[in-house]
Amino acid sequence: MDGSYTMKGGTDQFSYVQNSSCQRRGIDLSQGMMKEAIAKEFDVQNLLTNNPNTTFRIVDLGCSVRTNSFIAVDGIIEAINLKLKSYFQGLELMQTATPQFQVYFNDRASNDFNTLFALIPSEKSYFAAGVPGTFYGRLFPRASLHFAHSSTALHWLSRVPKEVGDINSSAWNKGRIHYTNASNEVLQAYTAQYVLDMEAFLLARGHEIVCGGLMFILVLAIADEALASQTCPGLLLEVLGSCLMELSKTGIADEAKVDSFNLPVYLTSPKQVTKLVETTGCFTVERLERLETLFPPASGAQILSNHIRAALEESIKQHFGLSDDDSDKLFDLYSKRLADSLSIFTESEEKSFQLFLVLKRNSVIIAH
Amino acid sequence: MDGSYTMKGGTDQFSYVQNSSCQRRGIDLSQGMMKEAIAKEFDVQNLLTNNPNTTFRIVDLGCSVRTNSFIAVDGIIEAINLKLKSYFQGLELMQTATPQFQVYFNDRASNDFNTLFALIPSEKSYFAAGVPGTFYGRLFPRASLHFAHSSTALHWLSRVPKEVGDINSSAWNKGRIHYTNASNEVLQAYTAQYVLDMEAFLLARGHEIVCGGLMFILVLAIADEALASQTCPGLLLEVLGSCLMELSKTGIADEAKVDSFNLPVYLTSPKQVTKLVETTGCFTVERLERLETLFPPASGAQILSNHIRAALEESIKQHFGLSDDDSDKLFDLYSKRLADSLSIFTESEEKSFQLFLVLKRNSVIIAH
Repeated sequence: MDGSYTMKGGTDQFSYVQNSSCQRRGIDLSQGMMKEAIAKEFDVQNLLTNNPNTTFRIVDLGCSVRTNSFIAVDGIIEAINLKLKSYFQGLELMQTATPQFQVYFNDRASNDFNTLFALIPSEKSYFAAGVPGTFYGRLFPRASLHFAHSSTALHWLSRVPKEVGDINSSAWNKGRIHYTNASNEVLQAYTAQYVLDMEAFLLARGHEIVCGGLMFILVLAIADEALASQTCPGLLLEVLGSCLMELSKTGIADEAKVDSFNLPVYLTSPKQVTKLVETTGCFTVERLERLETLFPPASGAQILSNHIRAALEESIKQHFGLSDDDSDKLFDLYSKRLADSLSIFTESEEKSFQLFLVLKRNSVIIAH
Repeated sequence: MDGSYTMKGGTDQFSYVQNSSCQRRGIDLSQGMMKEAIAKEFDVQNLLTNNPNTTFRIVDLGCSVRTNSFIAVDGIIEAINLKLKSYFQGLELMQTATPQFQVYFNDRASNDFNTLFALIPSEKSYFAAGVPGTFYGRLFPRASLHFAHSSTALHWLSRVPKEVGDINSSAWNKGRIHYTNASNEVLQAYTAQYVLDMEAFLLARGHEIVCGGLMFILVLAIADEALASQTCPGLLLEVLGSCLMELSKTGIADEAKVDSFNLPVYLTSPKQVTKLVETTGCFTVERLERLETLFPPASGAQILSNHIRAALEESIKQHFGLSDDDSDKLFDLYSKRLADSLSIFTESEEKSFQLFLVLKRNSVIIAH
């Protein structure tokens, strides 16, 4: 996985931890549904009969450096505790063993784990660990997790599809940094990469999550028949690309570098992700909900620009060799262009959303 | 735990990762004994009967940022695999399940986990995780570990004993940075802190390690009746303190800051640590060996100085507000003074050593 697309670490004004309030809304919206799913779908009895001293193991996949991760985890633990309480009351039993929780925070090894670890609350009801590595591969032993959570992370592909950076390919993506408004070949290359990645993700989790375990996914998505160019996230990337092209006219950015720069970001759809879960076979979709878009135009151009900046500035500076000043120029221009386009964003609002999925590990056995 | 005594992160010439060759020798010397202990003491049958799909969980406590940690872990895994192989051969059974290993690298949250994670080998036979937090407290769920390893870490106390920095206490440690050559009150304050810390350490591990699980400890120690001032590690700290006092005469360091600076380092003895294991009750000492000293005078003054520098420079610079230049002056002086004293170090060589312990978790139940 390309390490250069790591969210901006540290805690300064343009850091990811200071610019993930939009992501926070998604967590808030999905909390209630996670709790419902645990109450309804998670079979505590089976687990406790086998081992009354069970440790519940939870992972947040692609946690980045944001306190949202702790909020999601606390919600899951609260729901398990409620479930345990009602289970023991139903049996008129005393709950003798205290449930134990071990929480893994996962992201690529290039993530700023130092800052993340400093943010972990000292008062918490779980044992914490960080797990470095791409979630498109195996991260945990077989059948060792009960819950997996991934919020606003699965739109990152494991890599840029090779063809789109290849001048000799029909999928060469000249003058753009994403497939939004690009040729169909470019979109196809991105789609093929997404399918490969998502299958690898589901299989890896299929190995790691116990039968009956739950996975909660919150992911950027667009409507089934929509084009990226009709949606807010697609347009955000399109406008950023056009700003880079604009700067290339003034000599600040190199046009050839725009051609060779492509963001490994893919916007799936409800139909596509559901089909991938079905074909991979080890999970069933228990719930699928459309939540409001991650980037509501009502936030205003500056907020949207700051969010994109926190996510992409480091990799853009590195690729284009921009100084801090040039980077300021880029994102000032970006805020301005976004402000001009906000009316388009508003029109397209219903075509993009966050997709919330509850997947349950079924009993299908996967070959090693 | 005071976060300021974190080993120097990164990978530059004075980083810990570049200056832990002495520690490496200890690992090499103890590898054979760890393997013997696993072959002899670890009951695979009991574990596999309960769960043939067992994941073996291993922790390196106080891993810092050094590749030595990976070497120790690889040794443990190799020994378990050997043990499994001979177990299945003895039963004339095919080994059907592949053993799985999960390895936790633990150190305080202020440790440079970013660098550590970048050093984890990509080809490895285990799933890796980092666990931030002091090992003097709980880090893992009950009975969730099979092996714990701690090398050259348990000489760090959880904190400086309060009294030694208190001008109104009879244990005030004026003009020194350690108890070496200090008053008996200072030594007693350090000893009391060590006893508290070691009991907390043993109890926490008693909760976390399964019955029959093994703990390997490599720790700086001195002979039972020896004084720190008669030993190489004691003298290394004593000379560093006197260099700081010397610099205070030239105005580079502030004498009052020498008075208020104390290193939370304690040198235990075989008798003392054995007694603490016995009184805490949940482990039995299966083996105790004296290995050669961590700081052989034959290494020469420069190497010894570099090792101490990697471990202590950051906290000294911070406490005394030293510039990089002043810090260079301090450690240049230190190398010089060490060279002058190397003959004393040689005489005291047999009084300090690394102590290697194999502890086995017995069946004593600990109250929560």
